[in-house]
Amino acid sequence: MTGERPPASIRFRDALLVTQDPDRRLLRGDLVVEDGRIRSVGAPSEGPTEETVDARGFAIVPGFVNTHGHVAMTLLRGIADDRDLGAFLERLFALDARRTETDIEAGAALGIAEMLLGGTTSFLDLYYGEDAVARAVDSLGIRGFLGWAVLDPELTTQKGHPVENARGFLGRWANHPLVTPLVAPQGVYVCSRETWLGAKELAEKSGTLLHYHLSETRKEVHDHERKTGLRPPHWLESIGALGPHQVAAHGVWLTRAEIELLARHGVGISHCPNSNLKLATGGVCPVPELREAGGVVGLGTDSAASNNSLSMLREMHAAGLLQKHQKWDAAVLPAQVLLDLATIEGAKLLNTSGELGSLEPGKRADFSLFRLDHPSLAPARPEAIVSHLAYSASDEAVDSVYVGGRCVVRHRELTARPWQSIRTEAEAAAEALWRP
Amino acid sequence: MTGERPPASIRFRDALLVTQDPDRRLLRGDLVVEDGRIRSVGAPSEGPTEETVDARGFAIVPGFVNTHGHVAMTLLRGIADDRDLGAFLERLFALDARRTETDIEAGAALGIAEMLLGGTTSFLDLYYGEDAVARAVDSLGIRGFLGWAVLDPELTTQKGHPVENARGFLGRWANHPLVTPLVAPQGVYVCSRETWLGAKELAEKSGTLLHYHLSETRKEVHDHERKTGLRPPHWLESIGALGPHQVAAHGVWLTRAEIELLARHGVGISHCPNSNLKLATGGVCPVPELREAGGVVGLGTDSAASNNSLSMLREMHAAGLLQKHQKWDAAVLPAQVLLDLATIEGAKLLNTSGELGSLEPGKRADFSLFRLDHPSLAPARPEAIVSHLAYSASDEAVDSVYVGGRCVVRHRELTARPWQSIRTEAEAAAEALWRP
Repeated sequence: MTGERPPASIRFRDALLVTQDPDRRLLRGDLVVEDGRIRSVGAPSEGPTEETVDARGFAIVPGFVNTHGHVAMTLLRGIADDRDLGAFLERLFALDARRTETDIEAGAALGIAEMLLGGTTSFLDLYYGEDAVARAVDSLGIRGFLGWAVLDPELTTQKGHPVENARGFLGRWANHPLVTPLVAPQGVYVCSRETWLGAKELAEKSGTLLHYHLSETRKEVHDHERKTGLRPPHWLESIGALGPHQVAAHGVWLTRAEIELLARHGVGISHCPNSNLKLATGGVCPVPELREAGGVVGLGTDSAASNNSLSMLREMHAAGLLQKHQKWDAAVLPAQVLLDLATIEGAKLLNTSGELGSLEPGKRADFSLFRLDHPSLAPARPEAIVSHLAYSASDEAVDSVYVGGRCVVRHRELTARPWQSIRTEAEAAAEALWRP
Repeated sequence: MTGERPPASIRFRDALLVTQDPDRRLLRGDLVVEDGRIRSVGAPSEGPTEETVDARGFAIVPGFVNTHGHVAMTLLRGIADDRDLGAFLERLFALDARRTETDIEAGAALGIAEMLLGGTTSFLDLYYGEDAVARAVDSLGIRGFLGWAVLDPELTTQKGHPVENARGFLGRWANHPLVTPLVAPQGVYVCSRETWLGAKELAEKSGTLLHYHLSETRKEVHDHERKTGLRPPHWLESIGALGPHQVAAHGVWLTRAEIELLARHGVGISHCPNSNLKLATGGVCPVPELREAGGVVGLGTDSAASNNSLSMLREMHAAGLLQKHQKWDAAVLPAQVLLDLATIEGAKLLNTSGELGSLEPGKRADFSLFRLDHPSLAPARPEAIVSHLAYSASDEAVDSVYVGGRCVVRHRELTARPWQSIRTEAEAAAEALWRP
């Protein structure tokens, strides 16, 4: 990452600390960061630090973990609204064929900027051309968990075999401090048994995650059942594909048996309520049932082409509303659980809960400072802060954002690159892409 | 209203004009305002004006019309989450008894500030103590359609008879340029036939609106049916209460026959999706069916205690998602219709469509300037502006807001009073109210 070297140690003085630790404590006090990690949380002042930030009037909140998306598609926000997934993909696939490395990078930068400005510090992505996304991650300082899209060679516009392309991508980005390269079979509808198992083997041998779409639409589920005799989760089990360190996005159309199956195999679910609702997928990801079965659930925005935002605050809100509505029970997914999904549960999903997702000594210093004087948090009663984060806060309540102790957003300005240059570049790239 | 005298004429030069006129035209050009009204829209430059605003880089959008809420309750944001309407109201009624004129005005100012900063220029309110709300309207320069809550005398904490209190309120604010006082029977569960008809007669004699809650929960509907033999809409018809110039909030549990009935009597519906979803009311306001039957539907935020925001942008988004989900049809309530509900349809609901809700010559100059370089609108393709407003824009994309040609928000600062003083006053008032 370009930009300033972070100070070796920083004290954030007198903040409201939304720790998300095992006791979900709210503390008032100092947060001290050293060498990119959290040294102490809420403890009384001790020892000097290189920098001190006056954090009175701010809540410090763990960085949000966005567990599913296609960040380069931010360039396509609003291009294909008000149509179902089939018609949506038809429009999008036509555009995909025209995409260049330049506009993938420009779109990724646009989306990463939006995420950072909304307090998201880690994201899980599924796309091809992930090298361009990785460069945008590197330049803006977010954590990118980047899944190279794998599908059957005869169905892709990728040159060469997608599994081999993924292997190359893993090799090129194996040692980057912010990029975690991983493997992403797109879905059972475009992956043969051989392709899927090749992707899984590659992820396992490389010690990385496998990320895929699963049971998003009725069509996907029923087409697969017609073709193979099994619905997608049981088909994946039948070929020996299920296992831990896997993140399945959507999980909208799941039976009770499938919920148990996924939980038993340790497959995590990325719930994407805004995208599912807007595409009228009809079903509802069974979040409480998955959690009761022992599964881990995080939140994902999906892309700005279907959401149409990358705000994790909006995602928490939508996740809460959808489940309450679905169950006729206002107590389902209360505010604290929604914040858990966006932080510590998302970190578990990415197999990084020892490193990310809460304010605890030893963890990476990934967090945001929320302005307590922002209209969307007023009145800023400390006992209501978790409610405000889940139900009312807007992205602009985020004042500053740190990733690994480095300030990546300061008073709503990206530190690496001016927002206006990212926007201008993205709009130039959109010009060609949006042409009918 | 205190603050600066507006210039007699203003030219907004070279804006993207989201007219919401009968052809829903998007124009590029000038908007000229004279004596608080729109003189020309998109026409070539003609004649001098007292002030010129360079509006390149902005979209000018009609001010949003929020058709249901309880603005003074903004003080209670986050105080009673994750519980159904019954438990929610139990908590809220206990607090109501402790409310003072001072904190009603402080809460109203907080809510009005939030609405103005999010591009809302008119709102319909239902509460007691509306004089305090009217003072906040006057001081901040929004348009307030303020309904004095009417219920049976033995059920209210109001001193005196609520219908007489409403009459007094109508008299006191009959000639204010921004306040439209009106009558608001709270709901069939707290109003006898006599009370309801007294309220209706008062509204009709005063030539103003009647605003009420209707069929929000199953309990309300079934309790009333048990008590009277009729569900609420048909009971209202049976007592001769239905008619035009009425706005019923919620309309969540409506039968096909009730949809026809309300449309036939010209009763408008304020749809409040975020509040309904969060309170787990279970049903869904049949927005497309109401519109097909010839009814008028607007959007309302309800209060910040149940929403938990007063953003009309969030309301459009939720309204779209809920209907698409409900119908398994992504094409239902497309972006343009969502923007219609928030602007011109809301104006029809308030019986002000000749005055408000679109950018057309002769109408009141109520509109907002949206920054086209805001992250939530990027890439800012003109052909996607309506989509962005419906699905991704955040309140902070609003740069400036005009009501009747007077600038009430300039570059995100309220012109009448600093936001920080409103917030400080509200938080002082909350201090006593939030005590357990």
